[in-house]
Amino acid sequence: MDIFSKIAAGEIPSWKCAANEKFYAFLDINPLVKGHTLVIPRREVDYYFDMTDEEIAEMAVFAKKVAVAIKNAFPCRKVGMAVLGLEVAHAHVHLVPMQNEKDMLFSNPKLKLTDEEFKEISDKIFAEFNKL
Amino acid sequence: MDIFSKIAAGEIPSWKCAANEKFYAFLDINPLVKGHTLVIPRREVDYYFDMTDEEIAEMAVFAKKVAVAIKNAFPCRKVGMAVLGLEVAHAHVHLVPMQNEKDMLFSNPKLKLTDEEFKEISDKIFAEFNKL
Repeated sequence: MDIFSKIAAGEIPSWKCAANEKFYAFLDINPLVKGHTLVIPRREVDYYFDMTDEEIAEMAVFAKKVAVAIKNAFPCRKVGMAVLGLEVAHAHVHLVPMQNEKDMLFSNPKLKLTDEEFKEISDKIFAEFNKL
Repeated sequence: MDIFSKIAAGEIPSWKCAANEKFYAFLDINPLVKGHTLVIPRREVDYYFDMTDEEIAEMAVFAKKVAVAIKNAFPCRKVGMAVLGLEVAHAHVHLVPMQNEKDMLFSNPKLKLTDEEFKEISDKIFAEFNKL
């Protein structure tokens, strides 16, 4: 199993933000801003656009719900989305609460957060997700 | 109507890459790389995550088809995707053929292409889209 499949299966710990039977959302451990979250399919698939039409549609709806939870937990102008995927070979969507477009520049220095901060952020998003 | 609605309606010219009754794809006129395409819903909606579940699911499937066409027209490692949306108030998805993740840095200088080049690129993607 690849690292993200292990995370979704709970074999590697992560800061869980949302989950259902097919998808899993957790905090990026190298966040651009507080609330930067990754959404993945539980199924092992490398390239995002190799997902079936049904999967990509379901993932878009799940990611939307996570984005709403992020915005409720961390007020921002909009939640941005990015799929890059050349570094980890398991499809993943970045969701980033933005105050301005520069917040989405992946060349920006990443935040260093403590475990307490990661826990607080993920608990907050998880709570908002479960209200939806 | 906002500028992207006018583009989708054909009131403002664009380099068309793909279209159906609900969505429209055209070349970004400030491309990061050759093949950099924007996908929009014809309906006027500002924030991407304000689309209904049905819309966001249908747009994901349409964007996937455009991404496959782009990759067939412009061989690359993967097609990346980004939704920023703080500059134009009409939801839009960037699709960018990537050779490496740096190709998706929106701070990169944009390509200056001639009308002939834009036409050639959009014709190529449009032809690939219509084969799918």
